[in-house]
Amino acid sequence: MARTSKILLAHGSGGRLSHDLVAREFLPPWANPILDQLNDSAVFALSKDGGGPRLAFTTDSYVVKPLFFKGGDIGRLAVCGTVDDLAMVGATPLYLSASFVIEEGLPLATMRTVVQSMRQAAAEAGVQIVTGDTKVVESGAADGLFVNTAGLGLLPPGVEIGGDRARLGDAVILSGSIGDHGIAVLSQREGLEFEAPVASDVAPLNGLVAAMLAASPRIHVLRDPTRGGLATSLNEIAQQSGVGIEIDERKIPLKDGVWAACEMLGFDPLYVANEGKLVAVVASEDAETVLAAMRSTRYGEEAAIIGEVVAEPAGKVLMKTGIGGTRIVHMLVGEMLPRIC
Amino acid sequence: MARTSKILLAHGSGGRLSHDLVAREFLPPWANPILDQLNDSAVFALSKDGGGPRLAFTTDSYVVKPLFFKGGDIGRLAVCGTVDDLAMVGATPLYLSASFVIEEGLPLATMRTVVQSMRQAAAEAGVQIVTGDTKVVESGAADGLFVNTAGLGLLPPGVEIGGDRARLGDAVILSGSIGDHGIAVLSQREGLEFEAPVASDVAPLNGLVAAMLAASPRIHVLRDPTRGGLATSLNEIAQQSGVGIEIDERKIPLKDGVWAACEMLGFDPLYVANEGKLVAVVASEDAETVLAAMRSTRYGEEAAIIGEVVAEPAGKVLMKTGIGGTRIVHMLVGEMLPRIC
Repeated sequence: MARTSKILLAHGSGGRLSHDLVAREFLPPWANPILDQLNDSAVFALSKDGGGPRLAFTTDSYVVKPLFFKGGDIGRLAVCGTVDDLAMVGATPLYLSASFVIEEGLPLATMRTVVQSMRQAAAEAGVQIVTGDTKVVESGAADGLFVNTAGLGLLPPGVEIGGDRARLGDAVILSGSIGDHGIAVLSQREGLEFEAPVASDVAPLNGLVAAMLAASPRIHVLRDPTRGGLATSLNEIAQQSGVGIEIDERKIPLKDGVWAACEMLGFDPLYVANEGKLVAVVASEDAETVLAAMRSTRYGEEAAIIGEVVAEPAGKVLMKTGIGGTRIVHMLVGEMLPRIC
Repeated sequence: MARTSKILLAHGSGGRLSHDLVAREFLPPWANPILDQLNDSAVFALSKDGGGPRLAFTTDSYVVKPLFFKGGDIGRLAVCGTVDDLAMVGATPLYLSASFVIEEGLPLATMRTVVQSMRQAAAEAGVQIVTGDTKVVESGAADGLFVNTAGLGLLPPGVEIGGDRARLGDAVILSGSIGDHGIAVLSQREGLEFEAPVASDVAPLNGLVAAMLAASPRIHVLRDPTRGGLATSLNEIAQQSGVGIEIDERKIPLKDGVWAACEMLGFDPLYVANEGKLVAVVASEDAETVLAAMRSTRYGEEAAIIGEVVAEPAGKVLMKTGIGGTRIVHMLVGEMLPRIC
């Protein structure tokens, strides 16, 4: 891909260009062993000697447009997104920070609704918002409201989850249908009406992960396929672990409304963002136990085994298609849906 | 002050309207004992029973305009501001998160300079940037670059610092001259040229605080007078502790260039932002020891005792003026310098 001297929208896609930006511009100057883990949260011991409790720490800025959409809003997104990033390393989310950049003129009522939404999401997730900040910029210098959250969680002893831990023969489990969040936000933004309106799946997944870890503390990989979609998350895992991943298109849950919207708009749901789904890689002998635990929870009812870890082609994702062929599923290239989270 | 139904620039001033916004809109829905501390960082024990190590956690979003100014840039500001908020509760800063909201079209070279500046500031402060996020919004939807950092620090056993701990007879110490940051940013933004150009004081203060705590672990209050200036920080302390604070105008260090700029522009330097200064409240018997420790460090060379804690008027700040009178110094009302940090 050609180099550019300016930041492009696609640098925020979560796909290939985002990865390149991070790998070229941030990792070399800031390099340290914790940053270099490249999981959804940084994990470290509190004491310098590596003993004592292990913490997880993560941050995300949310710039979703519009602020409110079917199934959620920027407030619910900001809490759940960060809770989920903590859960994806197996941590128990405990504390959040919240920082607002507000455009002058934003109705106070809008801000109040977002604040209430964050309260409800935090209560559902069992986390506390303990510190915050508010900045205001002139009209025209920001688009309504941007929210940043950072989160802090505690890792249970023995849990070792990371994108580099997928092993040959492991099962790949998806917690439910894909593409709901992206299609919900896009529909709202563009004023599109579909026969079966799609609601965002934005949800805190820490309860689901706790149930999975109770069933098997040996889960290898967890990742929430947000920007860049399921295709990008699976590619990240394949690359970090140096394995192939083979999935079966027919086993991936997909809502009719998402299917119809993707058909009409020419989107591949594999690349559409989710905000309440996770993909797990577990040893094959644990797969049914973990799957049953997932299905017993609110946000894992539709969980399904969608594939397995294979030796070749290393670093790539293969998909058996609905019509019987096999194709390589690449990481997202370019920008499909800007400002989806 | 009249209520408003929309967010105003002054809601981001750090002064009275910012405090009202937080008190009315954020604290009631999100209330919890940690959030309600209202210090520069939240402090909590990691374990639910309150035992074990105590952590400090804080966040700030930086929207300074312009991105580069004499003495610093948004990157140095984003690292130092959060390091300083951790230091103000006596914590040893350890880990930072960094999140960028970038306007499409930002030159990569600009971003690189900011990233390098963050690297240098983190190295100076002895902290690691361990997790991050990048979002890109369309041209016109943000003003170049906003940076959020959150920070995590560890509290030494026995240290108890908070805005509510000022006691009658305590000394009030200021670490150096006031107003440098605000005047430096304003000069850059407005293209003003003064005879003695002012550089921002933006700096990590954790080394200064460590020297102070080594001299006396019993420091009562620390606060860095950023948005809203020294006047606002002293008012916060007076209100949180329910005491009066009396300061002597002639003892407050002020650079000639800042004095001249404030004269010309009609600003009161007591309200101009600092990014590398702190005000400390310590028992009178510890004051000289702490002062000497401060003066032995790079960022405390000009430290001075500027006043003391008095009984009346409770919750207010009095200043003996240069011409011999006494006046009440209020918290900043309205907005003086938007987007100063």
